[in-house]
Amino acid sequence: MNPKTLPLGLSCGDPAGIGPEVILRSLDRLPKLKVRIIGPLAVFERAQRQLKTRVDLNLVDDALQSPGRFDYGKVQKSCGTTSLLALELGTHLLKNNEISALVTAPVSKESLRLAGFTFPGQTEFLASRLGAHHTAMLAHTPRFKAVFVTIHLPLAHAFRHITPEAVLEKIRLLDEFLKHESPAVKRSAIGVLAFNPHAREFSLGEEDWIAEAVSAARKAGIDAYGPLPADAAIAALSAPRSLDRSTTGALPKYSAFVCMYHDQAMIPAKLLGRDEGVNATLGLGRIRTSPLHGTAFDIAGKGIARPGSMLAAIRLALRLARARPA
Amino acid sequence: MNPKTLPLGLSCGDPAGIGPEVILRSLDRLPKLKVRIIGPLAVFERAQRQLKTRVDLNLVDDALQSPGRFDYGKVQKSCGTTSLLALELGTHLLKNNEISALVTAPVSKESLRLAGFTFPGQTEFLASRLGAHHTAMLAHTPRFKAVFVTIHLPLAHAFRHITPEAVLEKIRLLDEFLKHESPAVKRSAIGVLAFNPHAREFSLGEEDWIAEAVSAARKAGIDAYGPLPADAAIAALSAPRSLDRSTTGALPKYSAFVCMYHDQAMIPAKLLGRDEGVNATLGLGRIRTSPLHGTAFDIAGKGIARPGSMLAAIRLALRLARARPA
Repeated sequence: MNPKTLPLGLSCGDPAGIGPEVILRSLDRLPKLKVRIIGPLAVFERAQRQLKTRVDLNLVDDALQSPGRFDYGKVQKSCGTTSLLALELGTHLLKNNEISALVTAPVSKESLRLAGFTFPGQTEFLASRLGAHHTAMLAHTPRFKAVFVTIHLPLAHAFRHITPEAVLEKIRLLDEFLKHESPAVKRSAIGVLAFNPHAREFSLGEEDWIAEAVSAARKAGIDAYGPLPADAAIAALSAPRSLDRSTTGALPKYSAFVCMYHDQAMIPAKLLGRDEGVNATLGLGRIRTSPLHGTAFDIAGKGIARPGSMLAAIRLALRLARARPA
Repeated sequence: MNPKTLPLGLSCGDPAGIGPEVILRSLDRLPKLKVRIIGPLAVFERAQRQLKTRVDLNLVDDALQSPGRFDYGKVQKSCGTTSLLALELGTHLLKNNEISALVTAPVSKESLRLAGFTFPGQTEFLASRLGAHHTAMLAHTPRFKAVFVTIHLPLAHAFRHITPEAVLEKIRLLDEFLKHESPAVKRSAIGVLAFNPHAREFSLGEEDWIAEAVSAARKAGIDAYGPLPADAAIAALSAPRSLDRSTTGALPKYSAFVCMYHDQAMIPAKLLGRDEGVNATLGLGRIRTSPLHGTAFDIAGKGIARPGSMLAAIRLALRLARARPA
């Protein structure tokens, strides 16, 4: 079957979070979308009654058992089990080419752990099931795109993971993604950020490793630059077009960045992304996106969550699925 | 003499950088400003000829010897000597209450070192000369204000300096500043950022120290909150007023932040500050500000530097001088 004509898969995430709500609000705006909703019918019926959305619930792949009674906004084993089953089924459908891409709604790690889940997160689960050994997380917003060299670990340990191999792998995955997303663009400038303030001034050697990776990437034909002082390189994104060179120097505007740790990427992603931030997993050999926010337990079930990030995750998945060689 | 009627002091910084240029462009827009320009007359005559500004050069305190011939955009010992002499004289005038505040133009640390300067930067020099033992750097922009707990050191060493005492000291200095800047505002909410991603999830204990400092600050009547996940707390600044709570949760908007390391503060400061970013030194017992950019050697002498950051530094210094108890 032509993967371009397959439905998009949407896994429900934690029923007690805002996942089902933002899925319904998104699909309400995309009535013609060919989609397979992966989660218990009861969860979506409850949300649809509350939100008064008009999504065709025949799109729900009701192979999953209902979590039964559950409370919005709470860590619950039953909801962890539902999250896990939806993720498992979504991954299975993705692996077997029954869906063109998987968009995962947010899960609660605490609820998942109560249900026996042992992976650090959904990404590691997907990588394991799909046999992917080199993956990267991409924070994707209209004005700022960045992959992470390190992400979910103590910041004091991050420097140990800044190696030429690790940085080069992320540069390569980002470059592949940019070519996939925009095949018409031949070369995209990739800015590789420094780990230390001012790049080299206070370096303990991390910037040498980064420079080695940039050099290897350039030899492989990738238009990479760095290590760049993180604050100035990112600030160039918001500089007035005319001239703000007293603060940004002569830095060009990069298509995307390689960031060294979580907050270096997430602070600008959330600042510039407003509610259009998407998380995409690179290197899976399949397309997987998710909203850049979490379960938002504090507002779940209140009908006030904005679907912007989920909509952006759906749209990016569709764009990538269409651009994929058939 | 009433400090409110004293002139403002402006030290020239490195003559080979954009300091004299942005000083002249700023004063060209503020013709009535009572000011004392601290630097060699020859440096400002050269810049004025090139820029065709109309600043009264009688305002130049020409006690300093000329650096002689020098090239724009280069590290030079003669320019380092000029930077050092201007800083020394500016500090002397500030200490002796001959100026209401000191605005320092950017220096080149390399040039200063060639001239025998042994301090890490201008701030440490000022602190030493003024006998100040507890100071903090404040990045000040219209939408984002933050003090740094650590700043110019390898990021891998930063965690060692996150102690309850260090964090509490910065909270106190920030709170004093906010009261000084806006005496009408009784309590300003201060957001104290976490060091690790997601705040506590990957903490090695830094967040316990931060929490201890926040608790002590609150006991002292300061409206401090934290440790907050840095990305979400800062993102709340740019969130649409209505509701973007799916991504930011219920976080309030803080008046200012305490940041744990250089890029955590400087990435949002440069992104949100455009060219209105100011660096202020807190805890000196005197008022000192400077633009948030450096010497910009790549564009020095070309007449294209924008004075926004210097103008903002002058205006903040004036505002603080007027608000100071006479």
